[in-house]
Amino acid sequence: MSRLLYLQSGGPTAVLNTSAQGVIETARAQGVPVCAAADGLLGLVEGRLLDCDALPASEIARLRTLPGASFGTSRHILPPYDHDPAQWQAIADVLHRYRIRQLLLNGGNGSMTTALQLQALADRFALDLTVVGIPKTIDNDLEGTDCSPGYASAAKYLACSLREVMLDMRSMGSGRVFIMETMGRHVGWLTAACSLAALPGLAAPLLLLPEVAYDEAALLARVAQRLHDDGYCAIAVSEGLRDSSGCFVAQQHADAIYGHEQLGGAGLWLAQRLQQTLGAHAHVALVDCQQRAASHLLSATDADLAYALGRHAVQWALAGQGGVMCGLQRLAQTPVAWQVVPQPLAAVADLERALPAAFIGADRLSVTPAFHDYLQPLLAGEVALPFVDGLPDYRPLCWPALPA
Amino acid sequence: MSRLLYLQSGGPTAVLNTSAQGVIETARAQGVPVCAAADGLLGLVEGRLLDCDALPASEIARLRTLPGASFGTSRHILPPYDHDPAQWQAIADVLHRYRIRQLLLNGGNGSMTTALQLQALADRFALDLTVVGIPKTIDNDLEGTDCSPGYASAAKYLACSLREVMLDMRSMGSGRVFIMETMGRHVGWLTAACSLAALPGLAAPLLLLPEVAYDEAALLARVAQRLHDDGYCAIAVSEGLRDSSGCFVAQQHADAIYGHEQLGGAGLWLAQRLQQTLGAHAHVALVDCQQRAASHLLSATDADLAYALGRHAVQWALAGQGGVMCGLQRLAQTPVAWQVVPQPLAAVADLERALPAAFIGADRLSVTPAFHDYLQPLLAGEVALPFVDGLPDYRPLCWPALPA
Repeated sequence: MSRLLYLQSGGPTAVLNTSAQGVIETARAQGVPVCAAADGLLGLVEGRLLDCDALPASEIARLRTLPGASFGTSRHILPPYDHDPAQWQAIADVLHRYRIRQLLLNGGNGSMTTALQLQALADRFALDLTVVGIPKTIDNDLEGTDCSPGYASAAKYLACSLREVMLDMRSMGSGRVFIMETMGRHVGWLTAACSLAALPGLAAPLLLLPEVAYDEAALLARVAQRLHDDGYCAIAVSEGLRDSSGCFVAQQHADAIYGHEQLGGAGLWLAQRLQQTLGAHAHVALVDCQQRAASHLLSATDADLAYALGRHAVQWALAGQGGVMCGLQRLAQTPVAWQVVPQPLAAVADLERALPAAFIGADRLSVTPAFHDYLQPLLAGEVALPFVDGLPDYRPLCWPALPA
Repeated sequence: MSRLLYLQSGGPTAVLNTSAQGVIETARAQGVPVCAAADGLLGLVEGRLLDCDALPASEIARLRTLPGASFGTSRHILPPYDHDPAQWQAIADVLHRYRIRQLLLNGGNGSMTTALQLQALADRFALDLTVVGIPKTIDNDLEGTDCSPGYASAAKYLACSLREVMLDMRSMGSGRVFIMETMGRHVGWLTAACSLAALPGLAAPLLLLPEVAYDEAALLARVAQRLHDDGYCAIAVSEGLRDSSGCFVAQQHADAIYGHEQLGGAGLWLAQRLQQTLGAHAHVALVDCQQRAASHLLSATDADLAYALGRHAVQWALAGQGGVMCGLQRLAQTPVAWQVVPQPLAAVADLERALPAAFIGADRLSVTPAFHDYLQPLLAGEVALPFVDGLPDYRPLCWPALPA
């Protein structure tokens, strides 16, 4: 009997496993055997496959609220055929040996390029294989979809966290600046989401987007005004903030923060600048992987969309509709509604969707109401987690190897 | 008619306002007018009082899940009488003018010293005043109480966050180290709490407690082992980690991190050491104020205890039982039960409770089962928040000034 193969690729999101749940439950309902590659593409190359059918339905249901990538993921890149024909052959052998007829790749824009390559690999080795992409990225930078699963939950986590900290700062009134550094090296979707932390009596944080060159004079004037008016000032800064010459501010100053960028350079760099220029005392929060792993604050909408995309991917793959990514198209705003639409992989692979100009405020330190209209429906709904002993029940699932 | 005055003092916690709710609802039920000082002691000195009776019961109930200090707080310290008699006089005038008969101070160990001073002030100016302390600190370093409200919710937030990130790292298997820096400059209660992130298949993070001098050789051996066995390693480090000569590691290296400690020196310093010694790539999370403001992940037990302490403080103050702090005494472990007991302010003021030796593991990088037994009941229970548009409804309460 033939099989459907599922791969997780790139950094996890809070709802990556929710798409996996959609895939497995849909395939199971159709009686199609499902397996997954251990550690994503790496496991496919090495022939390490896991048996998704070995666990009972109750365990599969736990995928809905499990952080991380349950099957393991990697950033492994498939070289062009001419550079490494042996690797292509190895994959073809695995696909053949395990009678894989459908391959679903759950990843970001780089992974959609890999999906294209895998479709080409099937053609080259004359394999009967249908490849479908399932979008996933907290950065929300995939083209061809209204949003990418993972983004909304990360956005909800960041906005909620910043709202909480702003209430804390407001009650201290200590003249301090709070800087939250967000992921999104090239695109400002996550930084922009911090704007929703605002409430009546709680001004929106100033936003330093990677799409906008750092304008120190403009920023300092606003920070000084906020400190005067409110007694505190909150700033959300992208890890990918750039100066007017297009260089990452953190990269320029990497030496000062221990020689590599990963340490959250932009926030610390900014704190230093505010101290040097305004004498302001700044706290810096680096939430790092937390923003993509915080399943305790899922957006139910995000989880539902992630599941629906997994489900559609199976249906299309079984119908032989390959070479596409499942995209989301927003049909209506009130009440919000989406439909899943096929997007040719070639039309989305390796492209990067920046925050549109229409979403960036005139002062370049804020977002427009249009952005709020875009994001708000995505945050809606909460997901009740199972708690054991006061903490979420995140016991990892143990997938057995697929028998040869 | 006489009044009861409530003050918030020091850094907020996620349940500081829950104690305020306990105070106001209890006093209201007894028909006693309640006011609060704006910005804590600072507002008392300056005669800025807020009217707690001006808001309806439905608004008071919202205090249960509101982060920050709703009345404002400060780190203002009352100098000894001889240093500033005018300030003592100013406070006496305010207490007299507003006919304050009971004063409740909600704070940490420094605030309990202030409570003692205020009782002395009442004696000096022959005021009829009963002073009661209500404990509060995420650091959990107050003597005379099984725990301090705020600690358990911060512990829950840290353990949950680290558990999520460990699942993320586990699925990447990238040989990376994740370092979470926790608050608690002098005591390791928060760092220790990170140990509860562990699950079957998810090793407990290595702990660097401020009570234990940094032993690099011991740490590196364990990190290398974890990287080999698991493909990743998580570490929780106290912001107050010290070397064998008793110096803060972050203070020593402050220049390298922009000249002040507040930027989370210990975690970044440690990342640098791991890179220099093991060539390990480390991610650092600085959650800063988030760990004390994360009301979206309250411990219901913590909230219940915070409320009970506020309620008892009112009852004792109205009964004239002053000069004490409401302490918690654990009566039983299964099922867990506490009673509220009076502790003389003089017996708790300015003392600092370190993590007991019996809670520190033999390898000095872990905690004992006894610590788990201590902490686990404190994490129990979740508090459902009201959400609006996908985010917690944290609209600040607007307290009107108390009419003169």
